[in-house]
Amino acid sequence: MSGCLTIVGLGPGDTRWLTPAASEALAQATDLVGYGPYLVRAPERPGQRRHPSDNRVELDRARYALELAADGARVAVVSGGDPGVFAMAAAVFEAVESGDPAWRSLDIRVEPGVTAMFAAAARVGAPLGGDFCAISLSDNLKPWEVVEARLKAALSADFAIALYNPISSARPWQLGAALSLVREVRDPDTPVVLARAVGRPDERITVRSLSEVEPSQADMSTLLIIGASTTRLIERDEGRGPYVYTPRSYGVRS
Amino acid sequence: MSGCLTIVGLGPGDTRWLTPAASEALAQATDLVGYGPYLVRAPERPGQRRHPSDNRVELDRARYALELAADGARVAVVSGGDPGVFAMAAAVFEAVESGDPAWRSLDIRVEPGVTAMFAAAARVGAPLGGDFCAISLSDNLKPWEVVEARLKAALSADFAIALYNPISSARPWQLGAALSLVREVRDPDTPVVLARAVGRPDERITVRSLSEVEPSQADMSTLLIIGASTTRLIERDEGRGPYVYTPRSYGVRS
Repeated sequence: MSGCLTIVGLGPGDTRWLTPAASEALAQATDLVGYGPYLVRAPERPGQRRHPSDNRVELDRARYALELAADGARVAVVSGGDPGVFAMAAAVFEAVESGDPAWRSLDIRVEPGVTAMFAAAARVGAPLGGDFCAISLSDNLKPWEVVEARLKAALSADFAIALYNPISSARPWQLGAALSLVREVRDPDTPVVLARAVGRPDERITVRSLSEVEPSQADMSTLLIIGASTTRLIERDEGRGPYVYTPRSYGVRS
Repeated sequence: MSGCLTIVGLGPGDTRWLTPAASEALAQATDLVGYGPYLVRAPERPGQRRHPSDNRVELDRARYALELAADGARVAVVSGGDPGVFAMAAAVFEAVESGDPAWRSLDIRVEPGVTAMFAAAARVGAPLGGDFCAISLSDNLKPWEVVEARLKAALSADFAIALYNPISSARPWQLGAALSLVREVRDPDTPVVLARAVGRPDERITVRSLSEVEPSQADMSTLLIIGASTTRLIERDEGRGPYVYTPRSYGVRS
């Protein structure tokens, strides 16, 4: 088999966050496979074939990409952010494991990218400056009890928490349930960052206190960062939002 | 005040992972401030001043950078990986909070980058494909009890765990203590990724089972990724290391 497959992280929206390595992987591909809105972010190349698909068919998309590669294509599977974070890389390896044994001989690579939580954090300061965790609130692929147990553990250990996939029309109540758990443990003044469409023209980043956050302030393009007990605001001049950061030190004076 | 300060993430070693936005921030700076080995990775520009410093003086370095910016310089503080992840961004905001109130009027930005754990994950597959956390094992700025409590919580919730700053000559026993905690909970066959100097010419990535991992296999340039209970290996042809990935699904069939 002469084909190959690279799962490429586009970063979060802004092409100025697309790494040179990712650009190169896109340029070298004969075939691009991915969710339609991500595909349009890859620069057009004459002769390159594009295979856009729906958002909810990751495993089918992964198998299709592997078939193309097995037929000799140089395939790039495009993914928003970093492909290893709640994105296409795991889907491709799931497909490899359960699929045609010949797929294991393919040259499969992952090209990392800037993931949404770090782009969101950068916009406001350094809210993930201490220990942190990332949890997908989607219960499409794991039971809600697992999400709940992970949230509780993260709260008990005082991690800053990034919440991916907080809400969608098919999952309307999960964010509210998660916020209720957070409110049982964290102070009402805990800073929460709501980062919508970070790096895209319609980006909207807001900082609220935990007591002010409502699920209706988020949508499926939003990522939330919930501060740890040590996460702090630095107020600035009128009209400029505060900086939000989590000190590196914890329980000791630096 | 006309100066500005950007904390720039260089990514993990390979300049092909330096984003265009980070390159631009470096190019526009009149002054570069940072740990010596990071500074040399920024391309030389005529007229640009460089202020290398030691690794263990983050807060002094942050204050010095803020003073330069307050004097009108366009300062770039360079940081490996992503500056918001166990790196310079939090140190700068700590310095702002405790320093000259005028510093709050400066234009301070953070330029995100690819952090080491995603570059390491990409090299082997998708070990961070499910929920995960990142913990610094350094107890320079937080008591060991906090590290221990966070590790225990992460283990109980079955997160994949990225361990930053696992070991150094001044902190020789912490990784061994952490691995003992992990072994109390996770299966001896759990995949562990040891990623040394990822993206640098001396990169060395190895995958071992938890039972085989020894602290002596890590050094201060190493990042560890400890799999969750669901993290799996896909064996490949002789001579090629296995893929390591964590499926997106948990406790349900996809």
